[in-house]
Amino acid sequence: MPCAWAFAGTQNVAVAASVQRGRALYASHKSLQAIVVNAGNANCVTGEQGIQTDARMAAITAGQLKLEPDAVITASTGVIGVQLSVSKLEAGIPLARAALGLELEAAATAIMTTDLVMKISERTLSNGARVVGVCKGSGMIHPNMATMLAFVLTDAKLEQDVLRKSFVGIVNRTFNAVTVDGDTSTNDMAVVLANGAAGETDSIEALVAIESVMRDLARAIARDGEGATKLLTVKVIGAPTEADALTAAKTVAGSSLFKAAVYGNDPNWGRILAALGRSGVTFEPLKTRVSIQGIHVFAGTPLEFDRQAASLAMRELEVTVVCDLGAGTAVGEAWGCDLTEGYVKINAEYTT
Amino acid sequence: MPCAWAFAGTQNVAVAASVQRGRALYASHKSLQAIVVNAGNANCVTGEQGIQTDARMAAITAGQLKLEPDAVITASTGVIGVQLSVSKLEAGIPLARAALGLELEAAATAIMTTDLVMKISERTLSNGARVVGVCKGSGMIHPNMATMLAFVLTDAKLEQDVLRKSFVGIVNRTFNAVTVDGDTSTNDMAVVLANGAAGETDSIEALVAIESVMRDLARAIARDGEGATKLLTVKVIGAPTEADALTAAKTVAGSSLFKAAVYGNDPNWGRILAALGRSGVTFEPLKTRVSIQGIHVFAGTPLEFDRQAASLAMRELEVTVVCDLGAGTAVGEAWGCDLTEGYVKINAEYTT
Repeated sequence: MPCAWAFAGTQNVAVAASVQRGRALYASHKSLQAIVVNAGNANCVTGEQGIQTDARMAAITAGQLKLEPDAVITASTGVIGVQLSVSKLEAGIPLARAALGLELEAAATAIMTTDLVMKISERTLSNGARVVGVCKGSGMIHPNMATMLAFVLTDAKLEQDVLRKSFVGIVNRTFNAVTVDGDTSTNDMAVVLANGAAGETDSIEALVAIESVMRDLARAIARDGEGATKLLTVKVIGAPTEADALTAAKTVAGSSLFKAAVYGNDPNWGRILAALGRSGVTFEPLKTRVSIQGIHVFAGTPLEFDRQAASLAMRELEVTVVCDLGAGTAVGEAWGCDLTEGYVKINAEYTT
Repeated sequence: MPCAWAFAGTQNVAVAASVQRGRALYASHKSLQAIVVNAGNANCVTGEQGIQTDARMAAITAGQLKLEPDAVITASTGVIGVQLSVSKLEAGIPLARAALGLELEAAATAIMTTDLVMKISERTLSNGARVVGVCKGSGMIHPNMATMLAFVLTDAKLEQDVLRKSFVGIVNRTFNAVTVDGDTSTNDMAVVLANGAAGETDSIEALVAIESVMRDLARAIARDGEGATKLLTVKVIGAPTEADALTAAKTVAGSSLFKAAVYGNDPNWGRILAALGRSGVTFEPLKTRVSIQGIHVFAGTPLEFDRQAASLAMRELEVTVVCDLGAGTAVGEAWGCDLTEGYVKINAEYTT
């Protein structure tokens, strides 16, 4: 069925053919019915040939599904700067068509690259409508409009305008609040499709469920960051605005120094203050409070605390930092991971 | 002798007591005669007590040298958030006074923290005036006004106004063009002192020598980045403005993904394009050219090149990337280092 849909694509200037095409489709306000994704090749900075290959990918898929090509959105992930093989698309897409089913696991697995786990989330609404989402992402993760590939599908009935208007804020509070390495992907894309098959739906309930699914997926990306052993959650409260809170939280979650300290179970809160201080957000260190795993470490001035106990508390699969900027009432949350030798190893040898 | 001087301090909101004091001194336009530096403790976010300790550090030094306290600038580097011991200052500063001499090595060594090598640079002008500089810096290195501690001394005669006006640009092209880990220090400070003892000096020649010394020191910081095995030099040409060129170069030099590729001798130029693309600089990928170690890898479209030969060419102590944005005539250069397991190890265990 034709779907109401919303889309967010990377802000990277070196943008993949698929994101360029998706952006044009989005502006056309046509309805969408299918998503085709390839993994292993990003089809990015591949020039005119890459753009033609991307169009061919949509056309082959449309042929298989008896749709117009413009009802199909493409997405790619993998190595940048290598031409994508048309013959592989011609051979692979019919196989994917033949395997089409209702289970999400196959799709969630097929789009993985350096991901170690598949990422799925689901909610059911009171009218029985389902919201399901899959995504992939592990490296080259730093929010700028959307982070890596994420697809959310629902049979809830949603007005396209309502969906699109809400989507920007939802993306900012979910995928844009994730950082693994500060590198924004060239192929980032988040798409939500709502086909309305479940009939009349409370749109607020549906939007909350969509945000909830996307939050699950965003946290799953951070937890599965390349080389990561831990999920890092940074909550900022007392900020002047929500944008400030998100910026401050992302800066802490993205600090290489603090991420290395998280890996080493080192309650080195000075690095949190240093990251907040360079975030660009206006606040007074004298009014700021910081806790790590619930242990208060700073309140305008260094607090006495048991470093051994704090280090022990950091030996969890999730480390949570709360920063109260004392500069307002807005809150925000961001997710990252620890920085490990594993991240370096994975990325020192990738293409050659 | 009273000196003409120029100063740049960190833009981090969580700013050390020494930088706060230095900034106030700078605004006062008084002349300066001495610099006192401690390593091992940053005296940052240490509240009112930290500010008093910093003032005491200047006063003890002034007493030893028979100067006014305002003729002494302080600088600190080390752990954030721990009170600096006044009794150690009272014991140590007289010892430092007794050891005062003309050799720079002692000063360059004393200010080291995680630095592996001391960093000194020197030039001699045609009138016999010398320009000497020392600095320290290895981690928490990301340009924002000045990077870590750098002190440049000269007996050249320079007007304070001329020196101060030129200093901003010089800092932007030198210390602000270095990145090790994207974390801006809370204690960054660059100071240049000119006492005029050498007599009449060609100010252009002196400023060029100062920039040249600071460039040497900036490159030395990048080469000695925590855990680094290589210096990474990124030259951007064909940019709309110098600021754009510097921003683009710093973004590539700071990309965790490309830095890991440099470590692994992987000519993964897609990561260079991805970094340029998220730098915020306006350019057309179709008009962009990239070379690594002189080997052309991209010219609007992927180029055929020998990956094994390129990988071999990257096994040098310095890896140079040139990016022509094809968007103007401005140029800029930035320096970083590779990202290694060593960086993670150093920073996973620091305070505990």
